[in-house]
Amino acid sequence: MSAGTIYGLGLGPGDPELMTVRADRLLRGARHVAFFRKAGRKGQARQIVEGMIPESAVEFPMEYPVTTEIPVSDPEYNRLLSEFYEESAAHLRALAVAGEDVVVLCEGDPFFYGSFMHLYTRLIEDVPVEVVPAITGMSAAWTATGTPITWGDDILTVLTGTLPQEVLTQRIKDTDALVIMKIGRNIDKVRRALQEAGKYDAAWLVEFAAMPGQTVQRLADAADKVTPYFSIIVVHGQGRRP
Amino acid sequence: MSAGTIYGLGLGPGDPELMTVRADRLLRGARHVAFFRKAGRKGQARQIVEGMIPESAVEFPMEYPVTTEIPVSDPEYNRLLSEFYEESAAHLRALAVAGEDVVVLCEGDPFFYGSFMHLYTRLIEDVPVEVVPAITGMSAAWTATGTPITWGDDILTVLTGTLPQEVLTQRIKDTDALVIMKIGRNIDKVRRALQEAGKYDAAWLVEFAAMPGQTVQRLADAADKVTPYFSIIVVHGQGRRP
Repeated sequence: MSAGTIYGLGLGPGDPELMTVRADRLLRGARHVAFFRKAGRKGQARQIVEGMIPESAVEFPMEYPVTTEIPVSDPEYNRLLSEFYEESAAHLRALAVAGEDVVVLCEGDPFFYGSFMHLYTRLIEDVPVEVVPAITGMSAAWTATGTPITWGDDILTVLTGTLPQEVLTQRIKDTDALVIMKIGRNIDKVRRALQEAGKYDAAWLVEFAAMPGQTVQRLADAADKVTPYFSIIVVHGQGRRP
Repeated sequence: MSAGTIYGLGLGPGDPELMTVRADRLLRGARHVAFFRKAGRKGQARQIVEGMIPESAVEFPMEYPVTTEIPVSDPEYNRLLSEFYEESAAHLRALAVAGEDVVVLCEGDPFFYGSFMHLYTRLIEDVPVEVVPAITGMSAAWTATGTPITWGDDILTVLTGTLPQEVLTQRIKDTDALVIMKIGRNIDKVRRALQEAGKYDAAWLVEFAAMPGQTVQRLADAADKVTPYFSIIVVHGQGRRP
């Protein structure tokens, strides 16, 4: 019996019409569907494919043992997540070894800050794994602003809101086009860094890009706003344009 | 009569199965299909949709008056391209005003270093324009390498090979994860910059990502290689991973 394949299936930003034809095809034929979620939630990735996967598909929710309850710098955070990824990978590996294909739902693009990467590195030596790329959340965000992100020789920098404020400030100052991911509770720090770098008034905040409830506004008009972790901040490049 | 819509239709990296469901749907129902190409060529974007658009569709090739024959720093380059975009936009505008929908084929993601942006800014005030985002060439490139591009707090920098060597060197040195677009005849300069920055051995060269003829190799193993403009160089981030 030949081994099954584990698909790291990029779903893109959230709109089912922005999934790839390949993702759509694999989902509609899936027998095993695995996905990450926070304990007690339905799971964002699972929500996106509602109504697309066969009713007969066997679902395997992988519940994070911790999200923001422990700082990432705490060794216990690392230990808990490592154990979690090992156990999840073991389950998927067993299915593949038994000849079953498994689709792992990945928000955005699997290889771009994705949780699937932690399974991928644990599985790739043992069983067939295929990654299906997808539209990143940042592409959906800059598209939602209605303004191109990079022109000509523009340099694009992608940062995470989890970085220290002084790093953010320096990097924001030092780029043409900018994307900041992982905002959520980092928003006040990111706001200060953008102000220090003189780019606060050029920054746009996109919530739920390409999802129901999408909002696009100047960050300056969103003062004191509480915003989700998956919000994205964009500053557009101003490069050469004939 | 209401105006038609001009769709800036992202095709993604080249594999038709990596197009979005929306792009696939719009292409198969298209009445007018516009696309850029170099004079005397079929056109890469047009090639990607071969067999997908209706035979009855009216095609509008937009042929660049100049590509690499004149340096971009020459004012004549700017004048020729500006005139070209004005004329192309005028044709599309007239179609939309006459009530026709037009699909404009865009390789990669339309708002990410795309030629469509030059039409978009000339049309958006006058007629309905919709941008359909897509998988970027860089996503296809890092997926092709089989290694994730960004982990944890990794900073990603996207550069173009058209930048001066000293700028490239500094930026390459100063980032965790790296993508360099627009390689082609800039490859020797990019190679020197990677060497100066101490990252030459970590760099991967991806040609024709997600297209027939895709190649993936360490840049160091591709010495003296002549490579297309759309080749992409990738250096993977090494950030936090439990």
